[in-house]
Amino acid sequence: MALANIDENLKIISIDAKDMRWPTSLGGHGSDAMHTDPDYSCVYVTIKTNETIEGYGLTFTLGRGNEIVQMGIRALSTLIVGRRLRDDIYARFDKFWREITSETQIRWIGPEKGVMHLAVAAVINALWDLWAKLENKPLWRLLTDMDPELLVSTIDFRYLTDVITPAEAVEILKQGQKFKQERIDELLKDGYPCYTTQIGWLGYTDDYRRQLCKEYLAQGFNAFKLKVGQNLEDDRHRCRLVREEIGWDNKLMVDANQIWDVNEAIEWMKKLADFKIWWIEEPTSPDDALGHATIAKALKPLGIGVASGEMCMNRIMFKQFLQANALEFCQIDSARVGGVNEILSVYFMCKKFGVKVVPHAGGVGLCEMVQHLQMWDFTSVSCTKTDRYVEYVDQQHDQFVYPTNVKNAHYMPPTAPGYSTELKKDVIAKFEYPNGSEWQRMFKEGIVKHITY
Amino acid sequence: MALANIDENLKIISIDAKDMRWPTSLGGHGSDAMHTDPDYSCVYVTIKTNETIEGYGLTFTLGRGNEIVQMGIRALSTLIVGRRLRDDIYARFDKFWREITSETQIRWIGPEKGVMHLAVAAVINALWDLWAKLENKPLWRLLTDMDPELLVSTIDFRYLTDVITPAEAVEILKQGQKFKQERIDELLKDGYPCYTTQIGWLGYTDDYRRQLCKEYLAQGFNAFKLKVGQNLEDDRHRCRLVREEIGWDNKLMVDANQIWDVNEAIEWMKKLADFKIWWIEEPTSPDDALGHATIAKALKPLGIGVASGEMCMNRIMFKQFLQANALEFCQIDSARVGGVNEILSVYFMCKKFGVKVVPHAGGVGLCEMVQHLQMWDFTSVSCTKTDRYVEYVDQQHDQFVYPTNVKNAHYMPPTAPGYSTELKKDVIAKFEYPNGSEWQRMFKEGIVKHITY
Repeated sequence: MALANIDENLKIISIDAKDMRWPTSLGGHGSDAMHTDPDYSCVYVTIKTNETIEGYGLTFTLGRGNEIVQMGIRALSTLIVGRRLRDDIYARFDKFWREITSETQIRWIGPEKGVMHLAVAAVINALWDLWAKLENKPLWRLLTDMDPELLVSTIDFRYLTDVITPAEAVEILKQGQKFKQERIDELLKDGYPCYTTQIGWLGYTDDYRRQLCKEYLAQGFNAFKLKVGQNLEDDRHRCRLVREEIGWDNKLMVDANQIWDVNEAIEWMKKLADFKIWWIEEPTSPDDALGHATIAKALKPLGIGVASGEMCMNRIMFKQFLQANALEFCQIDSARVGGVNEILSVYFMCKKFGVKVVPHAGGVGLCEMVQHLQMWDFTSVSCTKTDRYVEYVDQQHDQFVYPTNVKNAHYMPPTAPGYSTELKKDVIAKFEYPNGSEWQRMFKEGIVKHITY
Repeated sequence: MALANIDENLKIISIDAKDMRWPTSLGGHGSDAMHTDPDYSCVYVTIKTNETIEGYGLTFTLGRGNEIVQMGIRALSTLIVGRRLRDDIYARFDKFWREITSETQIRWIGPEKGVMHLAVAAVINALWDLWAKLENKPLWRLLTDMDPELLVSTIDFRYLTDVITPAEAVEILKQGQKFKQERIDELLKDGYPCYTTQIGWLGYTDDYRRQLCKEYLAQGFNAFKLKVGQNLEDDRHRCRLVREEIGWDNKLMVDANQIWDVNEAIEWMKKLADFKIWWIEEPTSPDDALGHATIAKALKPLGIGVASGEMCMNRIMFKQFLQANALEFCQIDSARVGGVNEILSVYFMCKKFGVKVVPHAGGVGLCEMVQHLQMWDFTSVSCTKTDRYVEYVDQQHDQFVYPTNVKNAHYMPPTAPGYSTELKKDVIAKFEYPNGSEWQRMFKEGIVKHITY
């Protein structure tokens, strides 16, 4: 039982939220059609207890605005500090989650979306890191070993019961008990497959892109993603180039990062279909479930699936994407939606609708976290790795105490207790914004400008 | 032409955002099933120019969290200060709107929803107040008199073109030129009808509720709204009581403020149907277009329409509510969505789908603003008042320099130039949070507690 080991007197004494930013825009990595200058950033939460144990959690952003999410976390912290971890939180996690997402005044500025829901995610993720540490297990293993009723009890099913009930979720987990140990063993041996976006950023030269394809093929990757949507001829050129390098048996996906309207997405993708595209990611607004459904219907005859989810704001929106048959691939993001509890509900819905979860990752900390969730999906929910991957970007892992471990294009299961969310101490000293030593140096040297308001 | 009168050198020199709160929770007014203790609040924006003219705008909140929206406005202001009003903003308002809603880093913490979109609304509303003043007209009249192409040019149609194009919107306005002067004259003479929510708050005694019904009937009201959703027997009791007072020819609407799941909403409303309910408002999550559609389909045979929109986050969500036949009544809110420009697009979509716009109002400043938009709908878009109302709550109007003027249950058209958004100077001195004199007094006397973080 994942509650019995927790001292009833253990309680939260403080929640610290740090504005962490890295100047990644200087290198041009991570840029796409909509986000041309991302500074990979996060608000980094430390939950301190009346014992020495601490929990770490984060939510990802692109830089500016990080301080607004930080302020959201400070507002939430007044609802949380002083609570006992076992009886006020983990033993009634669904109710606790609703209390912080539905605070009677604050919910008006959401509800359950945007800044405040990112703030919730960071805090909730820190609470799961703490819970896993209290059980001395990596998070994927905590989830995998957890009693089905207890796991499902962490989820707030409000607004979901027309498509899934707690009883159905418990039944899914009970079905997943069969051959679970075999899957755990397989995971420990082979890991979980990932695909690479590294060959795909806009702005690389042809030669460099070819070289990257060769490198990632050599590393064992068999699925590759390209950014598209700014110029059709240029998109065709890059698709052709990548197909020349990776051949036609490996998978090629493209990502438009929300650049198109619905009809434009359909027309554009028809003109890329001859490159055997496995999925088109974020063809239009992340809020447009029915728009995605229209696109999915039009592209299905061409063998192109629709993928979305990294900016899908909450379970209610995911529910509609699934109800509308708008997705073949569901790309949950570990730092969006209201943290682990709500993401679990999305996995259950995907299982019920037969939709493959292929998580978004890449931004700072996202790979570290989401690998845990997807490994649990394999051991306990979908129980398969067929046609499933986790995104992988080889960036900023060295900032973490327990970085991802990718071998032969597979994430190897984390072994350290927790959610792999802890940043190194010297990293915080360097990259806390704006007072970290690296930022101060860059301001002084005129490399970047500090905007105050 | 609504641009020719603007000096090309007029520019924005500062944007001030004030955290304004009123302790309305002490009186229990405005409470509903989800929001039990609202302190009607707003972030109040003042745009200063290099001339004496200023623009005022606001976005409404329930108190806590107001400071987070305020911070969002400060982040946006760095993108706006220094711009020339004519050539950088009004002459290309769609592009300006996209620049501030899609800033390459900040959009990640939205996009176009929650805290940041409320912040956008406050700034955009202040810009419209300023524009109307530059033309020396109340906003409804500025919109009514504006050249159709110029008006439509203010709207960013991104993600809407699968249901409406700029050309279609221009055509709607051109159709609306017919008999426009007659409608303006009618409006100036009779005003625009409103309904009252004042009889409907939870927690009133039977006698007080009967007395309020009598009072509002005497004032000329013929449409009344009740809060429901906490207790079915209590709801039936209050519906019966109100029907006894107002009879069966007047309209009765109920509002659940998002309390139910989809199937629960249907079952509950079946048990209220015998009270001849005109609409059920917010039966479930404001994000659940498909859920509302299911409810609307089930309740249609009972003569109950579905209404929602006050917390609908953006035009893309409204689009889906309309596509899914989820609404009979569309309740736009003047302080949500990204301000006037985006709300205009919702009116055009409602016109196309044949859905009635019946705006939400009541919170501080909402009545003052939304009357302008609905009057424009009558003069220029739907061109009818049939089965349409604006909500009215008789609260906090005295805080404004140009308060609403309701006569015989009709909003009379504002005459002062602008968007009726200016707060009185002494009100700011009293209710700015936390340093206003009234808040300081209440802290000192222990009436309310100031939470810091």
